[in-house]
Amino acid sequence: MTDQFSKKAEAWSARFSEPVSDLVKRYTASVFFDKRMAKADIQGSLAHADMLAAQGIIPAADLAAIQKGLAQISGEIDGGQFEWQLDLEDVHLNIEKRLTELVGDAGKRLHTGRSRNDQVATDIRLYVRSAIDDITGLLQQLRGALVDLAEKNADVILPGFTHMQVAQPITFGHHMLAYVEMFGRDVERMQDCRKRVNRLPLGAAALAGTTFPIDRLRVAKTLGFDDVCHNSLDAVSDRDFAIEFTAAASLVMMHVSRMSEELIIWMSPRVGFIDIADRFCTGSSIMPQKKNPDVPELARGKTGRVFGHLMGLLTLMKGQPLAYNKDNQEDKEPLFDTVDTIVDTLRIFADMAGGITVKPDAMRSAALQGYATATDLADYLVKKGLPFRDAHEAVAHAVRACDDLKIDLAEMSLEQLRAFSPLVGEDVFAVLTLEGSVAARDHVGGTAPDQVRAAIARVRSQLA
Amino acid sequence: MTDQFSKKAEAWSARFSEPVSDLVKRYTASVFFDKRMAKADIQGSLAHADMLAAQGIIPAADLAAIQKGLAQISGEIDGGQFEWQLDLEDVHLNIEKRLTELVGDAGKRLHTGRSRNDQVATDIRLYVRSAIDDITGLLQQLRGALVDLAEKNADVILPGFTHMQVAQPITFGHHMLAYVEMFGRDVERMQDCRKRVNRLPLGAAALAGTTFPIDRLRVAKTLGFDDVCHNSLDAVSDRDFAIEFTAAASLVMMHVSRMSEELIIWMSPRVGFIDIADRFCTGSSIMPQKKNPDVPELARGKTGRVFGHLMGLLTLMKGQPLAYNKDNQEDKEPLFDTVDTIVDTLRIFADMAGGITVKPDAMRSAALQGYATATDLADYLVKKGLPFRDAHEAVAHAVRACDDLKIDLAEMSLEQLRAFSPLVGEDVFAVLTLEGSVAARDHVGGTAPDQVRAAIARVRSQLA
Amino acid sequence: MTDQFSKKAEAWSARFSEPVSDLVKRYTASVFFDKRMAKADIQGSLAHADMLAAQGIIPAADLAAIQKGLAQISGEIDGGQFEWQLDLEDVHLNIEKRLTELVGDAGKRLHTGRSRNDQVATDIRLYVRSAIDDITGLLQQLRGALVDLAEKNADVILPGFTHMQVAQPITFGHHMLAYVEMFGRDVERMQDCRKRVNRLPLGAAALAGTTFPIDRLRVAKTLGFDDVCHNSLDAVSDRDFAIEFTAAASLVMMHVSRMSEELIIWMSPRVGFIDIADRFCTGSSIMPQKKNPDVPELARGKTGRVFGHLMGLLTLMKGQPLAYNKDNQEDKEPLFDTVDTIVDTLRIFADMAGGITVKPDAMRSAALQGYATATDLADYLVKKGLPFRDAHEAVAHAVRACDDLKIDLAEMSLEQLRAFSPLVGEDVFAVLTLEGSVAARDHVGGTAPDQVRAAIARVRSQLA
Amino acid sequence: MTDQFSKKAEAWSARFSEPVSDLVKRYTASVFFDKRMAKADIQGSLAHADMLAAQGIIPAADLAAIQKGLAQISGEIDGGQFEWQLDLEDVHLNIEKRLTELVGDAGKRLHTGRSRNDQVATDIRLYVRSAIDDITGLLQQLRGALVDLAEKNADVILPGFTHMQVAQPITFGHHMLAYVEMFGRDVERMQDCRKRVNRLPLGAAALAGTTFPIDRLRVAKTLGFDDVCHNSLDAVSDRDFAIEFTAAASLVMMHVSRMSEELIIWMSPRVGFIDIADRFCTGSSIMPQKKNPDVPELARGKTGRVFGHLMGLLTLMKGQPLAYNKDNQEDKEPLFDTVDTIVDTLRIFADMAGGITVKPDAMRSAALQGYATATDLADYLVKKGLPFRDAHEAVAHAVRACDDLKIDLAEMSLEQLRAFSPLVGEDVFAVLTLEGSVAARDHVGGTAPDQVRAAIARVRSQLA
Repeated sequence: MTDQFSKKAEAWSARFSEPVSDLVKRYTASVFFDKRMAKADIQGSLAHADMLAAQGIIPAADLAAIQKGLAQISGEIDGGQFEWQLDLEDVHLNIEKRLTELVGDAGKRLHTGRSRNDQVATDIRLYVRSAIDDITGLLQQLRGALVDLAEKNADVILPGFTHMQVAQPITFGHHMLAYVEMFGRDVERMQDCRKRVNRLPLGAAALAGTTFPIDRLRVAKTLGFDDVCHNSLDAVSDRDFAIEFTAAASLVMMHVSRMSEELIIWMSPRVGFIDIADRFCTGSSIMPQKKNPDVPELARGKTGRVFGHLMGLLTLMKGQPLAYNKDNQEDKEPLFDTVDTIVDTLRIFADMAGGITVKPDAMRSAALQGYATATDLADYLVKKGLPFRDAHEAVAHAVRACDDLKIDLAEMSLEQLRAFSPLVGEDVFAVLTLEGSVAARDHVGGTAPDQVRAAIARVRSQLA
Repeated sequence: MTDQFSKKAEAWSARFSEPVSDLVKRYTASVFFDKRMAKADIQGSLAHADMLAAQGIIPAADLAAIQKGLAQISGEIDGGQFEWQLDLEDVHLNIEKRLTELVGDAGKRLHTGRSRNDQVATDIRLYVRSAIDDITGLLQQLRGALVDLAEKNADVILPGFTHMQVAQPITFGHHMLAYVEMFGRDVERMQDCRKRVNRLPLGAAALAGTTFPIDRLRVAKTLGFDDVCHNSLDAVSDRDFAIEFTAAASLVMMHVSRMSEELIIWMSPRVGFIDIADRFCTGSSIMPQKKNPDVPELARGKTGRVFGHLMGLLTLMKGQPLAYNKDNQEDKEPLFDTVDTIVDTLRIFADMAGGITVKPDAMRSAALQGYATATDLADYLVKKGLPFRDAHEAVAHAVRACDDLKIDLAEMSLEQLRAFSPLVGEDVFAVLTLEGSVAARDHVGGTAPDQVRAAIARVRSQLA
Repeated sequence: MTDQFSKKAEAWSARFSEPVSDLVKRYTASVFFDKRMAKADIQGSLAHADMLAAQGIIPAADLAAIQKGLAQISGEIDGGQFEWQLDLEDVHLNIEKRLTELVGDAGKRLHTGRSRNDQVATDIRLYVRSAIDDITGLLQQLRGALVDLAEKNADVILPGFTHMQVAQPITFGHHMLAYVEMFGRDVERMQDCRKRVNRLPLGAAALAGTTFPIDRLRVAKTLGFDDVCHNSLDAVSDRDFAIEFTAAASLVMMHVSRMSEELIIWMSPRVGFIDIADRFCTGSSIMPQKKNPDVPELARGKTGRVFGHLMGLLTLMKGQPLAYNKDNQEDKEPLFDTVDTIVDTLRIFADMAGGITVKPDAMRSAALQGYATATDLADYLVKKGLPFRDAHEAVAHAVRACDDLKIDLAEMSLEQLRAFSPLVGEDVFAVLTLEGSVAARDHVGGTAPDQVRAAIARVRSQLA
Repeated sequence: MTDQFSKKAEAWSARFSEPVSDLVKRYTASVFFDKRMAKADIQGSLAHADMLAAQGIIPAADLAAIQKGLAQISGEIDGGQFEWQLDLEDVHLNIEKRLTELVGDAGKRLHTGRSRNDQVATDIRLYVRSAIDDITGLLQQLRGALVDLAEKNADVILPGFTHMQVAQPITFGHHMLAYVEMFGRDVERMQDCRKRVNRLPLGAAALAGTTFPIDRLRVAKTLGFDDVCHNSLDAVSDRDFAIEFTAAASLVMMHVSRMSEELIIWMSPRVGFIDIADRFCTGSSIMPQKKNPDVPELARGKTGRVFGHLMGLLTLMKGQPLAYNKDNQEDKEPLFDTVDTIVDTLRIFADMAGGITVKPDAMRSAALQGYATATDLADYLVKKGLPFRDAHEAVAHAVRACDDLKIDLAEMSLEQLRAFSPLVGEDVFAVLTLEGSVAARDHVGGTAPDQVRAAIARVRSQLA
């Protein structure tokens, strides 16, 4: 008797009267990209077969044959000898067909009680779970590298900007820790997403479950899933986890884009706050003097790629009726590319953090522009008794006078300053220094070097 | 002495030489939409003032004055007497200015140790936290309504579809529970997002913290925050929570769009599986016979709105350098509209669930089309010893024969069936019935009525 | 006899058994936003009535009554006396109902041969056409303002950047003209879009056309449409024009975002290339010295808003079956907000261009950093006979030596330069000056001041 | 003397002190995807070299050498012998390096007066121009196939739907022509986009133009460009055309998604309006009876992919300062994938149109459900003198009575009908037939078979 795939070149199955056209085969096949999930597919099949045997649905000898066959296939894939066939559509049929070649009827029994619908959903969850674990590790690695950079520069003062205008003096260590916080939230989101990834769809079969006495909890346990998906229709059609993962990845890339923007601006010669080591830069085909911060620029550009994948996946699922539709095959390429993009980007950023040279002199001279300590002066007046709004106005007058005189607030004489408020005393000059300003912001989350060091210790304990 | 805002019509502050142009005022003002956060703003100011007094930064009398003034303002807002002024830009300055009118210098002291940057970040987090709590409640309400509908129809059989083709018989109760699962994940995501919303930015001041001896933990406790934001630069520039919330909302709307799609198709006369009560439908201006399922259609359309807001917010933050930039003002309208959209949609869906009339006859007759029990026949052959792939092929032959004969599998004679496999016996007809098929999928997540009832009990316990 | 709307509080029409629920009314009503199209609606109704009378479908007296009634309604709307009713759902029914109150049966005849489906499609096209005309005017106004700025600064030299690194000297006039080109393409796209907006859907009725002997070409002519929509199903369901318009608007905002980014960076004190007049800036609630470029920042932020609307509209239409579905009602708010956003932004940018102060000294000193004339040196060597790739390498060596010596190329002695290539002669110093470099790029599209002036003349002739 | 690329393994150029790290090389290299533009790159280089020689910038002998070398390289690429090297970053350097190996110094002179910035911009425009021409051809091919299908079914009646409810009878030919209109607008948009693609950036060099006496118009003419880009900064940084193309492609896919949705619904057994030939369908791994419309489902899913690329490209360009930044390298993969997706999809749809079997009986019986001729009855009453709104209400009463009696309007007796309006006469039954209804909509754009045939003739003349 023929089996379902023995005459695939003639017709999809006995139910069909003509073969799939070549154009359609190429259009609908997924094997060229879904073969990336081959190991997850084998892992899932082994757990399924183990359960089938344990439940007496297939004989123990079939399980042994399947295990042997899949081990050989795994080796063939590793060794690059496995022949992927377009005619067999996807990773699942390619492996199953080969298995049947190797072990005969046992291979034809592997698909008992399951469907490609729940099989692919299982594979993709195994893939995403593993990606989340890798990405979490890389995020922590990057956080570690930024913490090191922060520690080395806990006392280096630069101007903090709002609206790209000089706002108040801050420390470079404090600035780096802002990114450590962002990437820390990314870790949290990845972990929250992992909970929803780590549920087993297998057992849903095509959409309704199966008539065989399967044990889904056993399979879940074998594969390290926390729970099973509790509704079979939902199990085969749910791609929430792919969207949630891509949304979390979009936030990672958004953070990367902000950091990149700053690195690029800081390395621009008019700013000159940092230099990035040559090994992270390239030159120009025409301009011999150029050294370009390619890595942060490209990373900023790759943000669009991941945002685009998120929009693509949301569009994909919009308005789809239950349960599985072929549309869902389009979930994989955006996911794979998202994983590649953020894995590569995080790895290179963790590496690049060690190649950043901080230029304290340029930072300091920038902090002396733009009346960075004006708020300190206003706070000083408040402490002398002036309501804040009046203090703000008095200092605004002083700043405007400085602007006309082309001097900084700290360069005014006591007499000049007193013209704006009689409350000003000799002690004012201490608050107008950069060091005084920074040290005074000495509370949880503030920029004072001691707070920065405390924050570093806190993050280090999380990373340990 | 003049304060900062007393001559705002002449210049933004004493530092400026000309007033803001009218065009710019209108372009940059946010008061027309951010006044929605007035109550959160007052709540935040009260907690801030309480802390200032507790730390001795302002006198107790000032706190009392501020409390009295803000209470009056709150009343004016409730009563619709509060005059919002474009010239005062935003909700914060409008309230502070009015407070100063009411209580004098105490009002001018309220802004001590804070900035609008951390103030607005606090307000928006209070707003989103409250929205999450509302939405969580509505999601559970909708789940409850769907569970009720599932329970009433736990035994009603309809065809389950994949690729919009008849796949296998399922129960309507089981189908409804698929959506209960989806909205259940939405609850989880909202709660995970809430953890990251519920951290206090106040104390970050403009970007670097403040020189006053503030107690951020006290403010956090007063406002019910779980923690403080641990880096001041991050605190004022972080809008992750807005994006994460909108991403979670996008998934809610994606689920709504899928359910809507099905309701619309099911109510189409050729399908006719359900009817939706007249009070949820409208007619046509030209076609007198029309009764249109406006609510699910419009909800499906509103999906785009929320996806768009997500894209807008991601774009907003892409490439922004630290710390606060005016761009961030654009975070509010998409958030507000997202909240309105999903609150309204969930409320109306929970209501509409009670207005759905299920038509079991139409469902049953549809289930009898399309060889819905073909898999049952294949499984039957497997249980008789045939490997699954061979069984699949044998049944494919049988289906093709039925197609030619224009009969269903269950209408074939035993003899006819045995032509496709000699393993077929008298007991085959039991597995070819709709009831037999459904009842046989009797494992966790399967469509068997008993499993549906078990799943209902499980969800009910979550909702209790 | 009752008409369709006389008992709307009891039921949508006689076909319905219960009234629409209040929640549903609010959810589905569009009058709160679509009343913005009231004038277009009246304009369309007048053209329709004129045709009905000309074709003898309604009597001339009815036409006169309709004209009189609509004139009065138009006045009521202008005067703010028109009472918009939620119960009447949308702008169309509100106006028709009022018309019937005013002129009786003639009002009930207005809807002969049309449906709200083709009516709203006509209204929205009239609205978008008018918006395109406004936007085109504003784009040209902005281009004019930038051309003025370019002309004033045709000889002002600043460093041109690639990768935010100093590349080659350019003129500020040339830089401004880059934006003039971008906004010029925006004009082209708006005009191309207009062609597809300017086709008449009226006459499609609900979806299939009407049984009345209508004259669609007459209506098209009356309303200034270039053509009619040639398929009735397409006419009522087509929202391509809304998407195409929003895509064109997204490109406008993308250009605005790039210009904003540059203005913000240029106004940052470390760069200091420009100042923006106080009337376009605001200050800080806490930092008395701050003057922030709010307008470009906010404009950059508003980019996300328009991108989001584009995504929303694309999502809206994805997968919608023909013909009209209620989803389509969601086309309006994104369109309206897109129009408002770009109208306001273009207006304020055209205005702000006149408030930009260029700082030639800062630009010049920046151009002297970063070896901006290195390419000129390479080109010099090529002209002396060296292949370009060898010249590039020779100059790269020279730049690295300068970097070690902390001097510019122009500061090297002839002897020092000749160490890198014996081809260097006395005439080298002319090519190493900023003026020499700029003037040498003297071809169509190049940065030489003469080319800038020629380009200005070219644009002026387009604007005239 | 060494040239720039002879020691690339040691350092990017002489200006760099260490080689680019391997991680960075892989991260920043584009050769793996941009080699797809190799032919465009060679075409551009030939035109550039031709101009350099014509202007006397390089000797004629160098031109000959370059031509010979590039011809050989072209052959090597075609023959699969060309060795693409990661170390040489991109398609441009790979080809130039090989050219220099082949022809020596002439190869090193090719880059005179240009930069990779204008070179890649030229290549990508040549690529997109060619893609637009292919896509335009495929759109017209698909339109032709749909017109054929429309012609064969110009008289086949099915129910037209609005809100997925039966609205009015239409013809299948008319329905197909709606898509012909949509794809016709897509052709227009592609052509409008082509105008802006077809402008030459070459000559902009890095960003400012070049010091060599180039002739840009000659190059434009050689390459078939309509014009040159008129500002060099804009020329190298402009990616509008990529976004505009992707937006036009998004509309193509949106139309495909709508058509797919209908095909899928129409092939669902409850509707059963069409069948799609087996060669465009596949089956299920578990359900032996399944025949799934994979092609339209997958096409509907691929919509998300293209929308995502559009969003990705918009994000990419948002906020980028002038002129070229490395971010721009990210423009290519979305473009390439967009082209592949719509080329494959249009080709397969044009093919599939011939594999659609229309089932007139199912369509007719569906048209007899749902009171499809109710509007005809209302129009009939209007022609007898009743105002439209009163006629609408009268018919709504009649429909509700039919609903209670479970009969269609045409099945009512004259007496029954007269109960709703005394204006009803014997002639009413003619207007209540499907044929009468369809034939009566006999104006431009209407569904009458004669109008359908006229519309077909009109489109055929466009396609000729």
